[in-house]
Amino acid sequence: MEKRLLESIKLPQGVKELNKDQLDELCLELREEIIDKVSVTGGHLASNLGTVELTVALHYVFDSPREPIVWDVGHQCYSHKLLTGRDITGIRTEGGLSGFPKPSESEHDAFVAGHASTSVSAALGIAEAKKIAGDESSVVAVVGDGAVSGGMIYEAINNAGRSKTNLVVVLNDNEMSISKNVGAMAKYLAQIRNKEGYFHFKDVTQRILLKIPLIGKGIFSTVKYCKTALKDFYYGSNTFEHFGFVYLGPVDGHDIQMLIRVLKRAQSLKCPVLVHINTVKGKGYHPAEMLPSKFHGIAPFNKESGETFEAHKKSFSDAFGEIICEMAEKDKKICAITAAMTDGTGLKNFAKKYPERFFDVGIAEEHALTFAAGLAAGGMKPVFAVYSTFLQRSFDQIIHDASINPLHVVLAIDRAGIVGGDGETHQGIFDVPMLTAIPGVTIYSPFNYAELDRVLKIAFAANGVQAVRYPRDSEKSVSPKYTADYHDFDFFENGKDSLIVTYGRLFSEACSAAEETGASVLKLGKVFPIDAAAVEKAAAFKNVFFFEESVMNGSAAEHFGTALHTTSFCGKYIIKCVDGFVPHMNVSSAMKKYGLDCESMAAIIKKEALE
Amino acid sequence: MEKRLLESIKLPQGVKELNKDQLDELCLELREEIIDKVSVTGGHLASNLGTVELTVALHYVFDSPREPIVWDVGHQCYSHKLLTGRDITGIRTEGGLSGFPKPSESEHDAFVAGHASTSVSAALGIAEAKKIAGDESSVVAVVGDGAVSGGMIYEAINNAGRSKTNLVVVLNDNEMSISKNVGAMAKYLAQIRNKEGYFHFKDVTQRILLKIPLIGKGIFSTVKYCKTALKDFYYGSNTFEHFGFVYLGPVDGHDIQMLIRVLKRAQSLKCPVLVHINTVKGKGYHPAEMLPSKFHGIAPFNKESGETFEAHKKSFSDAFGEIICEMAEKDKKICAITAAMTDGTGLKNFAKKYPERFFDVGIAEEHALTFAAGLAAGGMKPVFAVYSTFLQRSFDQIIHDASINPLHVVLAIDRAGIVGGDGETHQGIFDVPMLTAIPGVTIYSPFNYAELDRVLKIAFAANGVQAVRYPRDSEKSVSPKYTADYHDFDFFENGKDSLIVTYGRLFSEACSAAEETGASVLKLGKVFPIDAAAVEKAAAFKNVFFFEESVMNGSAAEHFGTALHTTSFCGKYIIKCVDGFVPHMNVSSAMKKYGLDCESMAAIIKKEALE
Repeated sequence: MEKRLLESIKLPQGVKELNKDQLDELCLELREEIIDKVSVTGGHLASNLGTVELTVALHYVFDSPREPIVWDVGHQCYSHKLLTGRDITGIRTEGGLSGFPKPSESEHDAFVAGHASTSVSAALGIAEAKKIAGDESSVVAVVGDGAVSGGMIYEAINNAGRSKTNLVVVLNDNEMSISKNVGAMAKYLAQIRNKEGYFHFKDVTQRILLKIPLIGKGIFSTVKYCKTALKDFYYGSNTFEHFGFVYLGPVDGHDIQMLIRVLKRAQSLKCPVLVHINTVKGKGYHPAEMLPSKFHGIAPFNKESGETFEAHKKSFSDAFGEIICEMAEKDKKICAITAAMTDGTGLKNFAKKYPERFFDVGIAEEHALTFAAGLAAGGMKPVFAVYSTFLQRSFDQIIHDASINPLHVVLAIDRAGIVGGDGETHQGIFDVPMLTAIPGVTIYSPFNYAELDRVLKIAFAANGVQAVRYPRDSEKSVSPKYTADYHDFDFFENGKDSLIVTYGRLFSEACSAAEETGASVLKLGKVFPIDAAAVEKAAAFKNVFFFEESVMNGSAAEHFGTALHTTSFCGKYIIKCVDGFVPHMNVSSAMKKYGLDCESMAAIIKKEALE
Repeated sequence: MEKRLLESIKLPQGVKELNKDQLDELCLELREEIIDKVSVTGGHLASNLGTVELTVALHYVFDSPREPIVWDVGHQCYSHKLLTGRDITGIRTEGGLSGFPKPSESEHDAFVAGHASTSVSAALGIAEAKKIAGDESSVVAVVGDGAVSGGMIYEAINNAGRSKTNLVVVLNDNEMSISKNVGAMAKYLAQIRNKEGYFHFKDVTQRILLKIPLIGKGIFSTVKYCKTALKDFYYGSNTFEHFGFVYLGPVDGHDIQMLIRVLKRAQSLKCPVLVHINTVKGKGYHPAEMLPSKFHGIAPFNKESGETFEAHKKSFSDAFGEIICEMAEKDKKICAITAAMTDGTGLKNFAKKYPERFFDVGIAEEHALTFAAGLAAGGMKPVFAVYSTFLQRSFDQIIHDASINPLHVVLAIDRAGIVGGDGETHQGIFDVPMLTAIPGVTIYSPFNYAELDRVLKIAFAANGVQAVRYPRDSEKSVSPKYTADYHDFDFFENGKDSLIVTYGRLFSEACSAAEETGASVLKLGKVFPIDAAAVEKAAAFKNVFFFEESVMNGSAAEHFGTALHTTSFCGKYIIKCVDGFVPHMNVSSAMKKYGLDCESMAAIIKKEALE
């Protein structure tokens, strides 16, 4: 069996020496490898299949790491990792590669990625640094059309277009709106398939701001402030040019020779260039081409059929989706907002049932928050459903727009606490510190779906900013001994010496540890403000242990301790939190690593408790 | 003496009944009142003078609060406050009106304001709420051209243009680039003076993204996807239209009749409309027209001459500016970034001396942070100089882009702690909680300029995110007894019972309180990470008091206490922080109100200390 190019050539430099057929061969190998490995581990499949040719062309033209490539979001980096000599076996699992670019992994990963819309800012910074140092080599940013809805991209492009840097921004567009009214149809138009068929399966997503039709000017157009009749407003005067970029494209993103040609041109222009390419998500694997959304982030699947192995298990996101639809049926003021995460936050049905009260604002968490506050000011009852990690983008807006003049906004915070394979960039371990710093915010962390239902109702009936947070998980259960209706806190008495305080899914771990050690358990339903009565209960103990899926500084554990130390408490207070960024691994491994599983809890209690 | 219109008519409804001459008269009265009152209190003058006609026209056409007006930033709200029946005597001082829109002050203040680029998001939320409720009345957002550089505006406009709401966005442009190459010149072109003369005094600011020339089509144009020859790319295919707005303008923003006409048209269109107006900052007061930047936020001044009374006193911002220039002279890698606050952050000279290493990115704090991280990734040594309150916009970027893969970024945080007349929206009381939640961040709070110099050098020589924070103030001094060179912490021993812990400008208050009470003093130079040796020193005391200009949750005071309670400390620990949003008042009043001045410190110590 012939050795693959991936094993034969020096990576990545060897890519530059391949001929046309070999480049095509390399793309086949990359697709095969990606499908092979991702079918085992799960991961981001469709976007990686869509960017195979682009990545090959980038490494053909540019010289990484001297000419760094900055990937926006970065989930489309698998070909890049393969072409820079890495093995994607076990990607996103402990011991395997990160599923996102990671500078500590390779010099070819120029910048961290995970959150959208950062690439142009980062790439521009690197490019300006080069300019100061007198280095004329290029810097490349690769952005998807979804990320272009983010305000940071606009801020960056506003600066980048005016800069005198050798910055190449590749806009990878797989949602291109094709204007049917354009005159001449060129050769490359024929190469770009009609995309209509793919939209059928798509969720409601953010249309790109550029409704740029394909202009018939040969293989690709060099448009530099072109004043021809074709370029009038109706046919999409190009916003990027407006900002000062030279615009090249649109180009078929699966035609390597064309990509190489246009990227070489971009590299040669020595000024900010926007290369607009059109790709097909999931390209080269039929199930993914048919259902690109399903295969965006896919669980392990059968390569032949495309079927996933595990049946979908109901999660907190699903429960939230059901509850909010039920509530919206009765209360016509309830509105739901998402920032391009309709499916991920469980709002698919809400969007179908109540389209006039559903808002997908695109990747725009800052706007989403203030928009929600505006809805509230206008008399509605908005809930912004958002991942904990992305809510970090809304910190100022929660303070300034929702809290100074308190407005009633509900935050449904998904992926709270430790997340698994997405790693450092996606951990939901900062939202409690972030929110507890803001006057007037209330935080609930329901243990199961019944509690979720209860606290959502409380949150919608209350005032000010009401946050309800839950993990990416199915609900856990506990023995009848520890089962109770929802209360702001519940006290389960065992021994009098040691007390475990916790909330959310850690409660089930705490119950097991309590059975093991004889510790009593204080379960918080309302995490913040800290309940004085809960603190008083804790004050009676010799040893209090607070376990929490959060960074330590600003955690509920810390605030509980601060309150505890104003009482007559004179015992030992121990906090176990997450001490730093959590790399990609499954959740139970992470729990163990950070001392938050029941065995670790029991061990800490046995070791530290004073008699 | 005839009664003024301001006293005679019912406000604001009475504005609608005024004739042309009376409307002009009203504008004169408003200008006079604003100049009169602001000359006494200081405040935002130039932007308020520029928006007199606009505000009158808005209240003529729209029916507040049913048709609410949302002001972006809001410092241009004085005419609005006057026209809604309020007295601006003593504005921005304790007991007087807020200098920004404040819903709790009046039903006519639709939404909080202070931070830029929020108005369209908020107004859109209100407009969507109206739509759901079947209310067809309008919502107005007023945005300045500076705020248009903010990513949130883009996110909002991207959603607003597609909405089917009756939203009117007024773009108040006082930096219009006039294209000289346009053909026909219409009547209104003649009304807009050549702006060249005003640019001479302007700081380097963000050019608006729309380089829209004045198109000669009569008094104003209704442009709805107009395909005429004039509207080709070169002449500014209009980005707002691209987003789905109807664009009206540009219009002379000082011609009330024209404003009324165009606003009525906008109101009647029942779809998202962008009304582009051109105004002169400082209009109607010669010194402010000549020096609009100086009169943007002005101290009390002599009405006749325009001269301020107090000589400028050197501040931390000035000291920072001097030090960073000195350092940049020696170290060619040092770069400085500001988000449209060159003067405010003391970077004016740096911008002049090292233009190739200076970056004003516009009102874009998110981008600014990630851009700084990119510069660091590219080998430079960036410092982002920013007000504490605006750094709140960069929370996610500090975590994601600067800390996960730690990059060396220096944050020069100005206006840290309590600010004065700007009130709730500008307090620098959240940056310590925000930053201490992020792994790997170091925070310094120098007491005087010598310490500022020292810690900046430490910060630039270290790694990771290094924050140096200082107030809007001149340095204070203390007696020789409490004077020392910079150390991470200094311990000044008096009695053995009580200890005051503090940092920054509160140190001088603490020293006075120490003399009064006999307490010892622990002065932190490095605020975070908490120094174990400092904590050990405190552990020996019976009573430890930590005073801090920060919200309590997540404060250094809280973290110090958390550490203290892991030692053998068994005394009393008392935190005095800022408990909530601080309204506008001068800093010393605020200090007193929140128990942070020396008298309050002494009183607390005497009251609480255990013998």
